[in-house]
Amino acid sequence: MVTFDVITMGRISVDVYPQQVGVSLREVTSFGKFLGGSSTNVAVAAARYGRRAATITRTGADPFGEYLHDALRGFGVDDRWVTPVPGLPTPVTFCEIFPPDDFPLYFYRQPKAPDLEIHPDELDLDAIRRAKVFWVTVTGLSQEPSRTATLAALRARGDGFTVLDLDYRPMFWSSREEARRWVSEALPYVNVAVGNEDEWETAGDATVELVIRKRGPRGVFAQRGDETVEVPPVAVEVVNGLGAGDAFGGALCHGLLAGWDLERMMRFCNAAGAVVASRLACADAMPAEDEVLAKLEEAVNA
Amino acid sequence: MVTFDVITMGRISVDVYPQQVGVSLREVTSFGKFLGGSSTNVAVAAARYGRRAATITRTGADPFGEYLHDALRGFGVDDRWVTPVPGLPTPVTFCEIFPPDDFPLYFYRQPKAPDLEIHPDELDLDAIRRAKVFWVTVTGLSQEPSRTATLAALRARGDGFTVLDLDYRPMFWSSREEARRWVSEALPYVNVAVGNEDEWETAGDATVELVIRKRGPRGVFAQRGDETVEVPPVAVEVVNGLGAGDAFGGALCHGLLAGWDLERMMRFCNAAGAVVASRLACADAMPAEDEVLAKLEEAVNA
Repeated sequence: MVTFDVITMGRISVDVYPQQVGVSLREVTSFGKFLGGSSTNVAVAAARYGRRAATITRTGADPFGEYLHDALRGFGVDDRWVTPVPGLPTPVTFCEIFPPDDFPLYFYRQPKAPDLEIHPDELDLDAIRRAKVFWVTVTGLSQEPSRTATLAALRARGDGFTVLDLDYRPMFWSSREEARRWVSEALPYVNVAVGNEDEWETAGDATVELVIRKRGPRGVFAQRGDETVEVPPVAVEVVNGLGAGDAFGGALCHGLLAGWDLERMMRFCNAAGAVVASRLACADAMPAEDEVLAKLEEAVNA
Repeated sequence: MVTFDVITMGRISVDVYPQQVGVSLREVTSFGKFLGGSSTNVAVAAARYGRRAATITRTGADPFGEYLHDALRGFGVDDRWVTPVPGLPTPVTFCEIFPPDDFPLYFYRQPKAPDLEIHPDELDLDAIRRAKVFWVTVTGLSQEPSRTATLAALRARGDGFTVLDLDYRPMFWSSREEARRWVSEALPYVNVAVGNEDEWETAGDATVELVIRKRGPRGVFAQRGDETVEVPPVAVEVVNGLGAGDAFGGALCHGLLAGWDLERMMRFCNAAGAVVASRLACADAMPAEDEVLAKLEEAVNA
């Protein structure tokens, strides 16, 4: 019986990302291969802070799937709940890198992503219950059996932080209304919800213990009970904005576990996101605590 | 009204191929981006011999699709019949390169490849009729509407060489019997059929004017009426066997148009395949005539 600091549940993929910046997939000539998927990246980011992290997801039964296990272990993320789905290829994701603010994604997740084949009866509900932070995403609600599994996991939760990453991606849904319906099913079981303005538009007005709204150039707004905090963005030369949100998420897990006050936590999360935005990679770019603190100090002195 | 030497019809994809040889997709770290797809490669190979070539196929309406147009034009292949299909991603294909004889392919062609969305009523049947060589593949028969379109194109043919590339890939079919059924529908309309031993197993005994059997280490067997020819393989240090068959096909188009005798043609096709097998790339590796002749001479003197 092991208790994890952080268990995340959701997407995984092989990110096949350009080695050239500022060009479209029409012009790019070569690619690197990286671990990807939002909730997976959050586990990687949390592990970088020394947190004991695991992720629940599924891959294809193929060499790309084996690579994802290697990469998870390399990042110190427990892969015991990462299982193969025969007959479905491991998803690959291409992107284009147009700094500072345009990073289109091209998902190859058809006919179905293995990570949407997470079955409720295969969950280790004891481990999920005991995890100090449990992190799920709205994408996990987009299809069955992952939807039922995600809700079953949420219902199993005991004490601790239960986070819903609003992570709303229109291409995974028939409509925003459909997403809103399932977000509203999940919200009663979580005590932290985090998303950007568009994602909160999908979620609607939610009564959650800790609400975090990422507002891009306007910084971050957080509310816990009567306490509200607004922190400005950390100025950074953006190289690749992809992964910044997951870096924020990993930092949030770390801050929640550390018991930091709201402002300190939001400043740290913001800076962690800024560090990753200033780097080309995503999972490989997740910072250690001293790197985030250096970025924070740099921002204060700027 | 333009008359093409060669029109091919069938698959197209972005080949995302490892930049490392002898490692699986588990270990590979970077990839190059190439034009791919069997019938597309055949058009490229024919164009390298100075033949006026076009291909009929479809891409996604995305940057990878635009890249394929750029690449076709770069190789001198007419792309007027290459059209986008909204809503379907341009297929990508990964491979592993284990010389000398293991080159697994990983197709991302779901939910459906745009090249299987070729509709019969969009075909330029006049141009197809007039082409000196018209080249179709068995994969084009695997799904509708491409199947009906392929058969309609074959029925429209006038004089000239009409080639069926037996190109049987089990993953594109529910069963070998299903493939055999549609191959037998197509065979009466072709006067050249080419494939390896396994593909001929799918085709069954066919009455075709020119039969070409690629037998790997046993060389090539060809039969035209009472005339039979067997030519030995060309010894080569294999780097990447992928594309060798398409190089053979482009050379076959060239030889048919040149009116070469059967033995000369088969030796040339064999050597063209060997040249590409000795190179890492596929479409980018298609040889000019003098390169093939040099390889032939080298083989004679070895």
